[in-house]
Amino acid sequence: MAHMTPDIETPAVLIDLDIAEANIAAAQAHFDGLGVRFRPHIKTHKIPRLARLQLREGAQGIAVQKLSEAEVFVAEGFEDILLCFNLLSPTKIERLRALSTQCHLTVVADNLATVQALSTGFADSADRLSVLVECDTGMGRCGVQTPQDAADLAYEIEHAPGLHFQGLLTYPAVQGEVAVQTFMSAAKALCITAVGHCETISSGGTPTMADAALAPVVTEYRAGTYIYNDRSLLARGACTLADCALTVLSTVVSRPTPTRAILDAGSKSLTSDLLGLQGYGHVVEFPGAQITALSEEHAILTLPPDQPGPAIGQKLHIIPNHACPVSNLMDQVYFHRSGTLIAAQKVAARGCVT
Amino acid sequence: MAHMTPDIETPAVLIDLDIAEANIAAAQAHFDGLGVRFRPHIKTHKIPRLARLQLREGAQGIAVQKLSEAEVFVAEGFEDILLCFNLLSPTKIERLRALSTQCHLTVVADNLATVQALSTGFADSADRLSVLVECDTGMGRCGVQTPQDAADLAYEIEHAPGLHFQGLLTYPAVQGEVAVQTFMSAAKALCITAVGHCETISSGGTPTMADAALAPVVTEYRAGTYIYNDRSLLARGACTLADCALTVLSTVVSRPTPTRAILDAGSKSLTSDLLGLQGYGHVVEFPGAQITALSEEHAILTLPPDQPGPAIGQKLHIIPNHACPVSNLMDQVYFHRSGTLIAAQKVAARGCVT
Repeated sequence: MAHMTPDIETPAVLIDLDIAEANIAAAQAHFDGLGVRFRPHIKTHKIPRLARLQLREGAQGIAVQKLSEAEVFVAEGFEDILLCFNLLSPTKIERLRALSTQCHLTVVADNLATVQALSTGFADSADRLSVLVECDTGMGRCGVQTPQDAADLAYEIEHAPGLHFQGLLTYPAVQGEVAVQTFMSAAKALCITAVGHCETISSGGTPTMADAALAPVVTEYRAGTYIYNDRSLLARGACTLADCALTVLSTVVSRPTPTRAILDAGSKSLTSDLLGLQGYGHVVEFPGAQITALSEEHAILTLPPDQPGPAIGQKLHIIPNHACPVSNLMDQVYFHRSGTLIAAQKVAARGCVT
Repeated sequence: MAHMTPDIETPAVLIDLDIAEANIAAAQAHFDGLGVRFRPHIKTHKIPRLARLQLREGAQGIAVQKLSEAEVFVAEGFEDILLCFNLLSPTKIERLRALSTQCHLTVVADNLATVQALSTGFADSADRLSVLVECDTGMGRCGVQTPQDAADLAYEIEHAPGLHFQGLLTYPAVQGEVAVQTFMSAAKALCITAVGHCETISSGGTPTMADAALAPVVTEYRAGTYIYNDRSLLARGACTLADCALTVLSTVVSRPTPTRAILDAGSKSLTSDLLGLQGYGHVVEFPGAQITALSEEHAILTLPPDQPGPAIGQKLHIIPNHACPVSNLMDQVYFHRSGTLIAAQKVAARGCVT
């Protein structure tokens, strides 16, 4: 890990563009090889400039989680957006309608209330809104619970004024690709029986991206974290240290004891996400040390005994447990190539919660 | 908990001003009764308008954790600011020097590198910078480890060009007031021996605010969370539900199973902070339900079996585990009084990490 120019005040989020570009290329080549359309999820970076690199490499469009993220990316000229979140409120569906005149939008629904709300908003639209039925293939979050429920909701969508049933979507459990194949094959067949078609089968997730071939029913894959990677993906063996594009640059501000160093990156920089791990990040320069606790502005780095450890003032690079929410904490990140600063880059879709 | 006007799009952070004002008044009265100066920490709300209410009630000034927070509040006209974080970089100390001409600043140090960096920046200043020695009285974060170390650093500060030793500061462990009294009494005596004076003894923390009388050596107390309270303080018995001013308003967007509801407030609204608790927040309308998992944009609310639970579209109020980092996620919060909207309020010091 090269050393960043000393003018950047810490804590700061650094993005190694060389690594990010290599990750973009590798993922696109992987899905090109499978014959699956690839749709990067922008929630990881929230930066139009990086999404443009993803499209240039061959991605078919982008996925977003929130309407306000879609608004940011439409304003930047993005033309093919999948919004993977149930919408309900008339105000939000009015905003969605405004976007739909500026780009090709696809949305999801897993319940009749959402279908009815979308239909009310689009009933008099010249173009029907494309809707995917979200399916719970094992993750235990959103989604209809059975293939028959998927087909029933597809029927409601296809017959709702202003809407078009486009297919199915799932965010699978980790190692859930076989379950995706089983559920989606059955649901697709039932949807074709119910409404005559089922074009898109969208799956996603960086952790099991490498196993995407186990679910050949899938036509489109969404992934976000792969562009940066993080400690959770390192722990799963889904990437190596050399694939981690995002680091949090932090300064040692105190050395109260021989085994304790205090860093200026706390939960306001690293988040409290554990994702099943011990500790709050991998310290590149001291891999044997552990970030054992975070306050909002402090990390407590516990050092192995009988080793010198870092000096006060030393800058350390931390690979966070989870890259995506780190992006959401920063007004800007710093692009670099192997330590040479390229630019301070605004995180355009930071804080888009609605 | 009254119902908020339906025009607010969710997720949204709501602040009940009636409750916040009552909390401000009660804390100030508590410290007035003890004869201890009270210095609210703005990290919880990050909003100058609320800090002004705290000053109007009798607070002597504010505490901030980061230089960039101090910059926001100085620009809003605040005149007495304690910055509780070791500074090291010449750039930051140049920024601090610029602020020092506009307000009365006090800073902390727990090591010689920070003292030297501060002295370099202020050596030719007309007014000496006030510095408190940070002491570790049991929290295990920053701070010198012994009273003698405190006195030794006080000596270095007092003899460093541009600096003035002002006293001692600690952020105590929970239920650490007796340890504060023991450490600080000894350190104060040694400092007076070393440099002839030790005016300020600053302690802090909402969790043990009620026990502040156990450390009569303390002259000034800092607390932040008391203005809003949160689920962690509820769990400690430090407040009641009626004292919780901050709630996250969220909509039920999916009901995949009879015992599962999906809310649109995830870790981007609630944070992943657990603070030793089970689950990610208290749902006011369904106190028997538990937020068992968060994604960035989803909460999984697990409902007791054989109860109806909320309908899709229903809005729920969540008291988060930890109020302070929730403020840091929001560009704006909504002020209300018992459910009647007052104003959308910018969170002026959100995202101040450097």
